[in-house]
Amino acid sequence: MADVKEVLRMVQEGTISMEEAEELLQSVSRLEYATLDLDRRLRTGFPEVVYAAGKTAEQLTGIFSRLMAHQDIVLATRVSAEQAQHVTKTLPGVSYVADANLLYWSARPLVPVRDGYVAVVAAGTSDWAVAQEAAWTVRCFGSEARVIADVGVAGIHRLFHRLEEIRGAAVIICIAGMEGALASVVAGLVDKPVIAVPTSVGYGANFGGVSALLTMLNSCANGVAVVNIDNGFGAGYMAGMIHRQIAGE
Amino acid sequence: MADVKEVLRMVQEGTISMEEAEELLQSVSRLEYATLDLDRRLRTGFPEVVYAAGKTAEQLTGIFSRLMAHQDIVLATRVSAEQAQHVTKTLPGVSYVADANLLYWSARPLVPVRDGYVAVVAAGTSDWAVAQEAAWTVRCFGSEARVIADVGVAGIHRLFHRLEEIRGAAVIICIAGMEGALASVVAGLVDKPVIAVPTSVGYGANFGGVSALLTMLNSCANGVAVVNIDNGFGAGYMAGMIHRQIAGE
Amino acid sequence: MADVKEVLRMVQEGTISMEEAEELLQSVSRLEYATLDLDRRLRTGFPEVVYAAGKTAEQLTGIFSRLMAHQDIVLATRVSAEQAQHVTKTLPGVSYVADANLLYWSARPLVPVRDGYVAVVAAGTSDWAVAQEAAWTVRCFGSEARVIADVGVAGIHRLFHRLEEIRGAAVIICIAGMEGALASVVAGLVDKPVIAVPTSVGYGANFGGVSALLTMLNSCANGVAVVNIDNGFGAGYMAGMIHRQIAGE
Amino acid sequence: MADVKEVLRMVQEGTISMEEAEELLQSVSRLEYATLDLDRRLRTGFPEVVYAAGKTAEQLTGIFSRLMAHQDIVLATRVSAEQAQHVTKTLPGVSYVADANLLYWSARPLVPVRDGYVAVVAAGTSDWAVAQEAAWTVRCFGSEARVIADVGVAGIHRLFHRLEEIRGAAVIICIAGMEGALASVVAGLVDKPVIAVPTSVGYGANFGGVSALLTMLNSCANGVAVVNIDNGFGAGYMAGMIHRQIAGE
Amino acid sequence: MADVKEVLRMVQEGTISMEEAEELLQSVSRLEYATLDLDRRLRTGFPEVVYAAGKTAEQLTGIFSRLMAHQDIVLATRVSAEQAQHVTKTLPGVSYVADANLLYWSARPLVPVRDGYVAVVAAGTSDWAVAQEAAWTVRCFGSEARVIADVGVAGIHRLFHRLEEIRGAAVIICIAGMEGALASVVAGLVDKPVIAVPTSVGYGANFGGVSALLTMLNSCANGVAVVNIDNGFGAGYMAGMIHRQIAGE
Amino acid sequence: MADVKEVLRMVQEGTISMEEAEELLQSVSRLEYATLDLDRRLRTGFPEVVYAAGKTAEQLTGIFSRLMAHQDIVLATRVSAEQAQHVTKTLPGVSYVADANLLYWSARPLVPVRDGYVAVVAAGTSDWAVAQEAAWTVRCFGSEARVIADVGVAGIHRLFHRLEEIRGAAVIICIAGMEGALASVVAGLVDKPVIAVPTSVGYGANFGGVSALLTMLNSCANGVAVVNIDNGFGAGYMAGMIHRQIAGE
Amino acid sequence: MADVKEVLRMVQEGTISMEEAEELLQSVSRLEYATLDLDRRLRTGFPEVVYAAGKTAEQLTGIFSRLMAHQDIVLATRVSAEQAQHVTKTLPGVSYVADANLLYWSARPLVPVRDGYVAVVAAGTSDWAVAQEAAWTVRCFGSEARVIADVGVAGIHRLFHRLEEIRGAAVIICIAGMEGALASVVAGLVDKPVIAVPTSVGYGANFGGVSALLTMLNSCANGVAVVNIDNGFGAGYMAGMIHRQIAGE
Amino acid sequence: MADVKEVLRMVQEGTISMEEAEELLQSVSRLEYATLDLDRRLRTGFPEVVYAAGKTAEQLTGIFSRLMAHQDIVLATRVSAEQAQHVTKTLPGVSYVADANLLYWSARPLVPVRDGYVAVVAAGTSDWAVAQEAAWTVRCFGSEARVIADVGVAGIHRLFHRLEEIRGAAVIICIAGMEGALASVVAGLVDKPVIAVPTSVGYGANFGGVSALLTMLNSCANGVAVVNIDNGFGAGYMAGMIHRQIAGE
Repeated sequence: MADVKEVLRMVQEGTISMEEAEELLQSVSRLEYATLDLDRRLRTGFPEVVYAAGKTAEQLTGIFSRLMAHQDIVLATRVSAEQAQHVTKTLPGVSYVADANLLYWSARPLVPVRDGYVAVVAAGTSDWAVAQEAAWTVRCFGSEARVIADVGVAGIHRLFHRLEEIRGAAVIICIAGMEGALASVVAGLVDKPVIAVPTSVGYGANFGGVSALLTMLNSCANGVAVVNIDNGFGAGYMAGMIHRQIAGE
Repeated sequence: MADVKEVLRMVQEGTISMEEAEELLQSVSRLEYATLDLDRRLRTGFPEVVYAAGKTAEQLTGIFSRLMAHQDIVLATRVSAEQAQHVTKTLPGVSYVADANLLYWSARPLVPVRDGYVAVVAAGTSDWAVAQEAAWTVRCFGSEARVIADVGVAGIHRLFHRLEEIRGAAVIICIAGMEGALASVVAGLVDKPVIAVPTSVGYGANFGGVSALLTMLNSCANGVAVVNIDNGFGAGYMAGMIHRQIAGE
Repeated sequence: MADVKEVLRMVQEGTISMEEAEELLQSVSRLEYATLDLDRRLRTGFPEVVYAAGKTAEQLTGIFSRLMAHQDIVLATRVSAEQAQHVTKTLPGVSYVADANLLYWSARPLVPVRDGYVAVVAAGTSDWAVAQEAAWTVRCFGSEARVIADVGVAGIHRLFHRLEEIRGAAVIICIAGMEGALASVVAGLVDKPVIAVPTSVGYGANFGGVSALLTMLNSCANGVAVVNIDNGFGAGYMAGMIHRQIAGE
Repeated sequence: MADVKEVLRMVQEGTISMEEAEELLQSVSRLEYATLDLDRRLRTGFPEVVYAAGKTAEQLTGIFSRLMAHQDIVLATRVSAEQAQHVTKTLPGVSYVADANLLYWSARPLVPVRDGYVAVVAAGTSDWAVAQEAAWTVRCFGSEARVIADVGVAGIHRLFHRLEEIRGAAVIICIAGMEGALASVVAGLVDKPVIAVPTSVGYGANFGGVSALLTMLNSCANGVAVVNIDNGFGAGYMAGMIHRQIAGE
Repeated sequence: MADVKEVLRMVQEGTISMEEAEELLQSVSRLEYATLDLDRRLRTGFPEVVYAAGKTAEQLTGIFSRLMAHQDIVLATRVSAEQAQHVTKTLPGVSYVADANLLYWSARPLVPVRDGYVAVVAAGTSDWAVAQEAAWTVRCFGSEARVIADVGVAGIHRLFHRLEEIRGAAVIICIAGMEGALASVVAGLVDKPVIAVPTSVGYGANFGGVSALLTMLNSCANGVAVVNIDNGFGAGYMAGMIHRQIAGE
Repeated sequence: MADVKEVLRMVQEGTISMEEAEELLQSVSRLEYATLDLDRRLRTGFPEVVYAAGKTAEQLTGIFSRLMAHQDIVLATRVSAEQAQHVTKTLPGVSYVADANLLYWSARPLVPVRDGYVAVVAAGTSDWAVAQEAAWTVRCFGSEARVIADVGVAGIHRLFHRLEEIRGAAVIICIAGMEGALASVVAGLVDKPVIAVPTSVGYGANFGGVSALLTMLNSCANGVAVVNIDNGFGAGYMAGMIHRQIAGE
Repeated sequence: MADVKEVLRMVQEGTISMEEAEELLQSVSRLEYATLDLDRRLRTGFPEVVYAAGKTAEQLTGIFSRLMAHQDIVLATRVSAEQAQHVTKTLPGVSYVADANLLYWSARPLVPVRDGYVAVVAAGTSDWAVAQEAAWTVRCFGSEARVIADVGVAGIHRLFHRLEEIRGAAVIICIAGMEGALASVVAGLVDKPVIAVPTSVGYGANFGGVSALLTMLNSCANGVAVVNIDNGFGAGYMAGMIHRQIAGE
Repeated sequence: MADVKEVLRMVQEGTISMEEAEELLQSVSRLEYATLDLDRRLRTGFPEVVYAAGKTAEQLTGIFSRLMAHQDIVLATRVSAEQAQHVTKTLPGVSYVADANLLYWSARPLVPVRDGYVAVVAAGTSDWAVAQEAAWTVRCFGSEARVIADVGVAGIHRLFHRLEEIRGAAVIICIAGMEGALASVVAGLVDKPVIAVPTSVGYGANFGGVSALLTMLNSCANGVAVVNIDNGFGAGYMAGMIHRQIAGE
């Protein structure tokens, strides 16, 4: 099985024809149960990320391993402890962040590559896992993430104590469950885009996160856009993408 | 047709038997289309209030008129302009508060009968009608109502400017549409019970007030209880009842 | 690590400046995973309460212990048996009320500090846990709670037998699952505010408590305000707050 | 075009063969836009009833007229004033009950044909139209209907005043909007089947009748079965069918 | 602790006063966690039935045992195997019908006490448990129940083969999951009241039984009334009540 | 402005280059407010169809006219009477089928081009408009459509009378509102694919067609696939496509 | 117990009367808990398929075994590993396809009996099980199924690489979870009917597959019809039925 | 009434004290029915925007006029034709963009103040109004907006023809109704943040925009964040804010 960079090099050197290259690349990306999207980085600026839920540990390991051969960084989200154990045993060098339920592997040390940071503002301690997923996605994307936890609106002065740090960010991720009011309050206080993540924290009429989701979609403060319930990854991805653009990359 | 007070007096004086009194009272309260609840004041401390929606102008006038004969104050909510015109024409002395869509009649001038006041805090100008319904219900209940309008969380300093006035109230009514975050924020800042009223202000994923309703039911701040969407009357009633108890009546 | 009262005393005595005090207080309230709201009592009249769901036993113990150092009473709700075991082992003096799934610690014996009582009226035996959560919250708040269980409307005479006791309360909490009709019936019979708690008791078209929630929000009887499904704590908190005000504290 | 009875008579007399009769009967029941169900009375004990909504006045008149030729009683529900005017102008002898939005025609005077009665118990004046639809359907079915209006649970003594009359019925129809608690309360007090009709009366979180519908489906009292929102006709039909069976017909 | 019949006898004999009797009866019906409704039979014609879900095995046994002392028949629904084991061990003579998840005890052999029968028509084999719950409730009510299983509309001739038996019933219970079309089809073919029970059988867009529930509420055939999802008990109760009335009891 | 066929001819003849042709074609398909999809017939076998709702009469006319220049048949659905009047006045030869709310124009007479027919089976007279939309779409697609109206399951023998005609079809479209049971019953009786169309006919718990939609999605009979509520067009399109394939085109 | 073919033979030979045959056939199809639909193949072209969920292993084995005696092919879906083990142990020759959760038995080798194939296009690896269920149903139906996995729209070029194979199919099944956009995109690119299967893959606001379901029902591309969430079987059945018709069987 | 800038100047010059300034500023921002948020630009980088729905024409004019005195640009959204007429008559210089239902007034000509542009990509002609609202908000924010209309996925080549222009944007707004698949497809093809706007275009199971909303929240492609249904303004605001940051302002 060929390596994407190898194939590209051969094309550049004229060793193989375009047609041969195309065929090689397709064989590279095709597993029985998956069709890898190896040129996604070229199109979207970030390589394919693996959604682990619903995959067997073997499928996950197979996909992860194949991506490691072609990408500088590989990330998998929604990874269970069992899946993680299988992958990390099989593939040395892969890290499991249990708090965030994610696996990542990076060819290079994971340090910020651009100025500024993304603020990950979370309403409660129970939102911790989603906040960590967002923060680690931001880091995998090459940006610095600062987590500001447990500053929900029930004790709004806690938010004001941290306001300067929040205002200093390039992009703000706002994470809240229950009534999710934090996003509106923060957006009314800053001049930066706010990516809001509703969480399923709560019970009864929170309907698994619907209450926070609706709150954030109906924010009376402007400059808020929303991702799926508990989707820390999606917010981190969006924030990283905006940050990269601000950095002029 | 006898008058309730008259009947009671006759019982007291022994002019009529218990059975005769009961029969008289029932005839008093029975219209073809309605069964009036004339002793509600005794049971719940406040006379029956008329829900005008879905009644013909004639039915509304009939019920209103009958209640005027037996109660010191009569209140009807959700009154359309057409209904109001019919009632006020037929029954002099009845007032229509168009902003609040309510009709009231009071045997005595409508002035506060107890110390302290109810704060009616509304998030936006579009919540005006619901705020007025709440305020006028409070007034009909014998309490003072102060409306503090348009202090939604998008510009949270507006709320802080009015915080002292809000904190000074005996009971607080919080009215908000869209994401309805105001209730949580206010409840986190005061030591008084907050009656929250979600409104249908907004569009799309506000689902006619559901977004604000869920927000308020899931408030991360404590000391919040919720009434139906756009139910300014219900909040005013509840606030008046609490206020009366605080006053030791 | 300093103690809040200690810090305040030092300020009063002039031993430390305002700035030093502020810094000290903030360090006191900041854990890695939580930002404690130590002055909540000043703002809202009751100290911060811990929502245990979604926290590790260690996080819960950490927060509980920190709060014990600064508050006279500490309360945690939605505590699992496992969490409870960890906290009570680590922190002697903390009590676990298994029926109510709550942990509390009080510096003083838990006896009512004001006249009158809160009636906790529950429709069925299956609503027991929610009723207990409400009652214990009321007690932690310094009021007396009387539980009147299994008086649902299917056998309405059971309710009438207890009506005097219900009417005698300062505030009434009404707890019901299935169709939740109890709140409307009670509210039509009393002159006290009714805090209604829908429960998830039932199956099928009860939709996890939605049926009772909608019933209570649409009560044709007035003087009802609603909290979240199964939220006995929220109702107890609200009732305690109203009771305290009635007592003139 | 032949008449059904005529056809049947000819079969009996042997004037026509079975095949000829079948063909005749089918031609009788087929309009371009409708296939009439002329033998429904034989199968279900009551002739076909026309659902007028969504039909043109001409279609309605056509169907109504055709049924008049073959049935002793014809009933159409959900008839608008415009449709009614067209039908009654074209077909003399047809009556429009505006309160109930229904048209009926009867070959015989509409008097009860069996002992006992159906109680139609309605919670509020705003439920009047649905109650009338139920009552008139019962009458068309040959039973007596007694309407007991405005006895909702907000003033429960109103219900107790009428309890004897309700208990005396053969079948009880219970109609309520808002929270719809009346059905549970009534069912807990009687030993007769209760057909519950949720109505769309109310606003906000009543969701067009869903609140009352869920209440009735989740009744903690037994002996309640439910029909569609605002479906007075369906309840009247069901009650009439049960009543007829009780009468041993 | 006195026995209800004993108390009533003493009243009759004048041994105790009305007041003493009342007090005795109330003590009889009051457990710490439950208020028994011992005169329900008088009011509704059938004694109280226990809803076991959400009760501890001890509570269930306690209530069951107390009811056995005062009723001729005792029934508990939604009983888990664990609960059942505890009750049947403690209280000899109690039967557990595992298929129907119910416990019953009868002072007399459980044989039909009236002519005719109730047809329990179920669409699929997977609806078996609900059908059994309905059938056993009917039997406890003193009527005969005949179960006609697996005659759903996918193979409609199966239904026609059994139609005579269905038509012969006094009351028909129709049980179906998935799309629940069986109720409409049956109701269009019979002249008996149909009690429809939607079940949660299915997956995906059946939404736990909502699809069948809506189908049955919107039946284009008349003479259908609906109970809660999976509520075989409720349908059996309703059918038994109607059957008893038809029998003229 | 060039004509698509003209452009293609010029390419074939070599009069213009590929690049010139592409540019020409794009200019052809671009209006300010619309981007026409002129090669859709090549891709999907049927030209673009216009969804008229939400477009001004002018926009609709503009698009329709442009498509007439490039397609043999043009179809617009969800056309209001006002829009239709504007189009038919401006563009002679365009036909408005008011019953189906659609406009069509055909370069050739609209006669079936293949053997066999599509059966359009509708449950009630109120489903007429949707049935017509389906039938006319089938006709525009070149197939014969036979409408079999008002054969809903309330009178199931009506369906059996027409069964032969239904079974004879190549594809069956089943249209029903309310509980939508017709689709399951039909699918259980035929060996042809059934395209089911739920309609919004009904009220209350039909939730604008949701009840019929869920019924059809949960059909216990196999061989049913569903389109959007009231989407007669979509069903006609699907049926036509299948029919064309069966004909081997 | 007689065999269906045996019975039919005896009828043909005149050994038994029609009445005897009917009785025999009914006894054949009647188990206590199930009524088999043995002539379904005649009506719908494919024998009855067993829905295993909610049945005991014994019931499933009983039904499966009975069907094996009368059908050439037997298929059961939604089979758990436990059920499968019981059936395959008891009935040799039955195959369990674990990936698809189905059991099948075929009297003949399972090879395609007609030209052309059905394309089973799946968006992600997590949709694998549903895709397998669809593919194996197609195979049991006698058609060839080709699975094209993991070609979701996030990397749309993956779809274009396989487009020719998709376009070559007689019928296309499109399977997607999350936002389910694949069906619209594919339908816009092909001239074959698309059967869309929403899956429950995803989390949060996917609501167990509702997001993909709504997407597919609202497809802006035409030629899409939808089956229930996760219903690979239903799509396979529909596709097989269409394919058979195209083949002119 | 003082002007904000005037007040600030006086503070700077020491003409008035801080206290006097504060009082002046508050009087400036307080109308009876509204509390203006005059320093929002300082906090969030953009002045307050007026939500016109639910306000009287007089209120709207009053607020608009007051803001014109203190801001360089004033914007009102969701403005009806009637409201617009009143405002533009009273306040010369205000422009009404009927297509977008918005009013704006700018002290300076409305030309882009930064490099690059925002692409507003809309799926259908019926999404025009939302696209215009987004575009004009972007313009009021000082950025260039390019509208690319009617490139929905039903004819995906239309999208590819415009891909270069879309990829060249700094930020992309994606607007789609019905199934809303456009956002996922675009996000999979670009390396820029995508702000997705679901619209209410469609009918039936689109549920007023819910289908598109869920699609966008569940996008399998990354880099998508969502605003409320039909909220073109919100998307334009978010895009403008990101664009400004990229420009380094």
